Amino acid sequence: MDLKGYMGKLLWVDLTREKIEARETPENLVKAYIGGKGLGARLLYDLSKPKINPLSPDNPLMFMLGPLVATGVPAATKAALITKSPHTHTFLDSYGSGYWPSWLKLAGYDGLILLGRAERLSYLYIGDDGVELRDAGHLKGKGVFETTDILVRDVGDKAAKVATIGPAGENLVEYACVSCDYHHSFGREGGGAVMGSKNLKAIIVSTDNRDVEISKPDEFDKFLSEVNRTEIMGPDHEWARTDGTPIIIDWSNETGLLPTHNFRMGVFKYADEINAETLRRYRTTKYTCYRCPIACRNIVEVRRGKYRGVKLEGPEYETIAMSGSNCGIRRFDAIVKWNYIVDDLGMDTISAGATIAMAMEAYQRGYLKSEDLDGLELKFGNEDAWINILNYIAFRKGIGDVLAGGVKRLAEYLGGDAWKFALHIKGSEMPAYDPRGSFGMALAYGTSDRGACHLRAWPVAYEAFGDMDPFTPEGKAKVVIEDQDRNSVKWSMVICDFYAVGYETMAKFYTLVTGREVSTNELREIGERIWNMTRLYNIREGFSRDDDFPPYRIMSQSLKHGPPKGKKVTKKIYWKMLMEYYKLRGWTAKGVPTKKKLKSLGIKA
Amino acid sequence: MDLKGYMGKLLWVDLTREKIEARETPENLVKAYIGGKGLGARLLYDLSKPKINPLSPDNPLMFMLGPLVATGVPAATKAALITKSPHTHTFLDSYGSGYWPSWLKLAGYDGLILLGRAERLSYLYIGDDGVELRDAGHLKGKGVFETTDILVRDVGDKAAKVATIGPAGENLVEYACVSCDYHHSFGREGGGAVMGSKNLKAIIVSTDNRDVEISKPDEFDKFLSEVNRTEIMGPDHEWARTDGTPIIIDWSNETGLLPTHNFRMGVFKYADEINAETLRRYRTTKYTCYRCPIACRNIVEVRRGKYRGVKLEGPEYETIAMSGSNCGIRRFDAIVKWNYIVDDLGMDTISAGATIAMAMEAYQRGYLKSEDLDGLELKFGNEDAWINILNYIAFRKGIGDVLAGGVKRLAEYLGGDAWKFALHIKGSEMPAYDPRGSFGMALAYGTSDRGACHLRAWPVAYEAFGDMDPFTPEGKAKVVIEDQDRNSVKWSMVICDFYAVGYETMAKFYTLVTGREVSTNELREIGERIWNMTRLYNIREGFSRDDDFPPYRIMSQSLKHGPPKGKKVTKKIYWKMLMEYYKLRGWTAKGVPTKKKLKSLGIKA
Repeated sequence: MDLKGYMGKLLWVDLTREKIEARETPENLVKAYIGGKGLGARLLYDLSKPKINPLSPDNPLMFMLGPLVATGVPAATKAALITKSPHTHTFLDSYGSGYWPSWLKLAGYDGLILLGRAERLSYLYIGDDGVELRDAGHLKGKGVFETTDILVRDVGDKAAKVATIGPAGENLVEYACVSCDYHHSFGREGGGAVMGSKNLKAIIVSTDNRDVEISKPDEFDKFLSEVNRTEIMGPDHEWARTDGTPIIIDWSNETGLLPTHNFRMGVFKYADEINAETLRRYRTTKYTCYRCPIACRNIVEVRRGKYRGVKLEGPEYETIAMSGSNCGIRRFDAIVKWNYIVDDLGMDTISAGATIAMAMEAYQRGYLKSEDLDGLELKFGNEDAWINILNYIAFRKGIGDVLAGGVKRLAEYLGGDAWKFALHIKGSEMPAYDPRGSFGMALAYGTSDRGACHLRAWPVAYEAFGDMDPFTPEGKAKVVIEDQDRNSVKWSMVICDFYAVGYETMAKFYTLVTGREVSTNELREIGERIWNMTRLYNIREGFSRDDDFPPYRIMSQSLKHGPPKGKKVTKKIYWKMLMEYYKLRGWTAKGVPTKKKLKSLGIKA
Repeated sequence: MDLKGYMGKLLWVDLTREKIEARETPENLVKAYIGGKGLGARLLYDLSKPKINPLSPDNPLMFMLGPLVATGVPAATKAALITKSPHTHTFLDSYGSGYWPSWLKLAGYDGLILLGRAERLSYLYIGDDGVELRDAGHLKGKGVFETTDILVRDVGDKAAKVATIGPAGENLVEYACVSCDYHHSFGREGGGAVMGSKNLKAIIVSTDNRDVEISKPDEFDKFLSEVNRTEIMGPDHEWARTDGTPIIIDWSNETGLLPTHNFRMGVFKYADEINAETLRRYRTTKYTCYRCPIACRNIVEVRRGKYRGVKLEGPEYETIAMSGSNCGIRRFDAIVKWNYIVDDLGMDTISAGATIAMAMEAYQRGYLKSEDLDGLELKFGNEDAWINILNYIAFRKGIGDVLAGGVKRLAEYLGGDAWKFALHIKGSEMPAYDPRGSFGMALAYGTSDRGACHLRAWPVAYEAFGDMDPFTPEGKAKVVIEDQDRNSVKWSMVICDFYAVGYETMAKFYTLVTGREVSTNELREIGERIWNMTRLYNIREGFSRDDDFPPYRIMSQSLKHGPPKGKKVTKKIYWKMLMEYYKLRGWTAKGVPTKKKLKSLGIKA
């Protein structure tokens, strides 16, 4: 391939036949889809038969990098995990950071494509000296942290980086994640279960290379310095540089959209005991992913009391909200402990927190009794039960076997009206911005290509946290679409969410790194192309407009406190946003991309 | 002891008699001198006979902590190494940070006092399970990094923290340092040589405690949050939070006081190749000392070329300037390599850089020839020679035996007019702010209690980097005194230089932590008391006004470029500043504290 910034090879591993092959990265696809999410979306569509079982050997599991990864571009630290989700049965892209994604690229690859299923539990070694599938019998049932340590020792390279699943992945928990560098996760929607279904415990990368060839190195260096000075060190990234996401606790609570007691409230009385100011007292150091100038990472340690000695990279806003306020937990140190256990078991903290919160409401309402729970009193705020239940889930013990399927599965299991307090979209637990406090978030969740997700579009930034009216449907479709397309490009480069990068900067970085001139308009088109691609995938899998709606509680019950008092996202309001969204997208009123749209984007389905 | 924040014990170790004893921290001394520098200064004065040989067993070596260390107070991460300097023969206080100082406190001590000399090379183990002097034969001659790794393995606690000397300390290089946590140094004036003279290779601390008792924990937490928000995250600490000290390269070069070619120039043509913008391109991550919210630490890695693979926590401004521009070196990656080697050998980068720069000038002037240097062509800008000479110094090989004594020793060895380009005060190499670009720095260097030091007072902040006229003597004595006194208090708490903390905040933290109400006026008086104490020590050791002057080049040769063009700190100018300084200090015209002054400060000499 002529383009710089790419390593030129994709690593294909057929686990069933133990066939390992490095093939050229297809330049035509790269030009149309960049890498990361885009390239992965195209390949997943092409490589999969429709309606496969996500946990069957037929489901490809990919880790895709992008041209900017490991070049020093701010926050270009991620890889995209691409597969069909066993939790939502939709297209799945999920992003991990830390060092492992950069190492995978530095080892010489633009991506890793895993097919089939290994005969026995294995791990994949990727080194400068070759690639090998190795026995992982000694890692069976082990947590993320221990597995990481053992593998680093086994390969004898202290700088080697590990991505692994924990017990949750081995036991096919629907929201098991793939964890890299201990506390970084390809978090949502069960990539870890797919890896577990392939009998693949871990992927370790050992490489001495630290260099990605750049087309115009001098201009690149100059531009990078300018961007670091003006964008990264500027006021837009102040929040990330100082505290990172936990700062959002205060914003959410003040605007009344902080999930509390399974989304029955949006204001948490004890928010200031779990906010960023509290975190600072627990912080021992800050940290960054590989070569990121932002340094949003917090390393915390509990120094006294019951949870003394627990250390964690985290917790993030989503974890604090979904496991804290949403479960009625007000002790920061307890959240650190809970997060630590969930990370070691290898599960998504959002889905785990949401599922436990729903189980707590079920317990309160009498749907679940102590005897269903091995004696655990799963009340809101009961720390011990909230911690102990985690092992039940990861090992699918007792009620854990149900909870391992998330809130949708729990509602099915409980029956009756339980579906009314199961907060999910397409099976994915709703994350920590209550849409009743920011109506655009309802549309963002509803139209996300992987189920309820706050990352594809984050209109709350313009609404509750900005100066757009949060309680009207007007104008929301437009900002949601803009975010979705731009993020599709970002995630194809692959750049982390925490760098608020615009098209212009991305175009310039892309041009300087690859040597291929790209305009902002071309990037916009690529973003739209990718978004249409994943929509096509989901339609092929059987999804339709009916699946694009928010859950019952959001549409039918109003909040009682704070700015959103009395608000709900009624069907009328949502319908207005959704129809506008489809229209602006150039899709039919049923949410299907028109032939004209596909043709204009050059998509061959 | 009744005061909280202190651990209540000092650990006394008599290395000669292998006697280890924890004695109560003397409350009366703590009230008058706080801890750190103050307490150490008082104890050193009381424990030492006058005019001892600093490398004899008679010289105590102390590591003193303070009441704020490890409490979460910003930048309260340091310990003060206190001893008589083998390089300057003055009082010596030097500060290391990272994690080790906090661990020493958490293990239960307000300080460690080492006396005598071990019979054979030993290391000190300090654990929750006891304190032990152990054989270190297996560590002889080993570098700082390997020693650290071996000891952590030996004691079987991955979280154990190590302070150690490298070969330079074992070989009594006059500017050998004590290094902790790999890249943190008790850097200047030879604390490492004193440790080497005691046959003590290292001190490892293993503790599970993370808790320091605080008198008013709730008020403390609240105040800490406020300080973090308003002071640390405010504009005053922006420079430290983003890039740390390397940002100063630009400031110094623009104001014409960046040492270049052994202080013959103050402007370096290639400054933008060794500045913070360049550093950012090498940075893999940022980092902090234990519980510090500032995160000034840079972790860099060289990714390509000759020095590929080198990783470093650093380099700091002083290192970049003294080893870079001052030696005519313009490659950032080379500076990283040089810094790495110096850290592993365990030497002070300022003195090492300054000494090599002088040797380069000597070579240029024909004082030194290639044959004196084992064939090394020690020209300005010759990277290979500049790197290779380091081993000569650390192992005192050939000319290295002379260079191990610093520029004063080199001048004596070379004879003739060499003293004219030996830039030192009291034997200490002058650091990286040329006083001809900021006259107050001359006074700061001249009156420093440990020889030329930029940390006791930093008037350049008000002069060249601020809005005070840098080229007059007026008003300089006052700001130098203010800095010296305030820093004496800071270093007794012990707080790092990079937190620009005022008396009011210190008084409040001290009060909330210890439970003993202290006013800002009391703190000011303590600062002055400490400064007079170290002056008394130096006078007792034989120092006088004659030793308070800047070196020849600064007083007699002017700079040719930038704002200080044509400037020098003439005798007349300096005399004016010095006399004003003595007067404001309440000292005689010969620089001796009057009885009245000592009495008013409650000092019994």
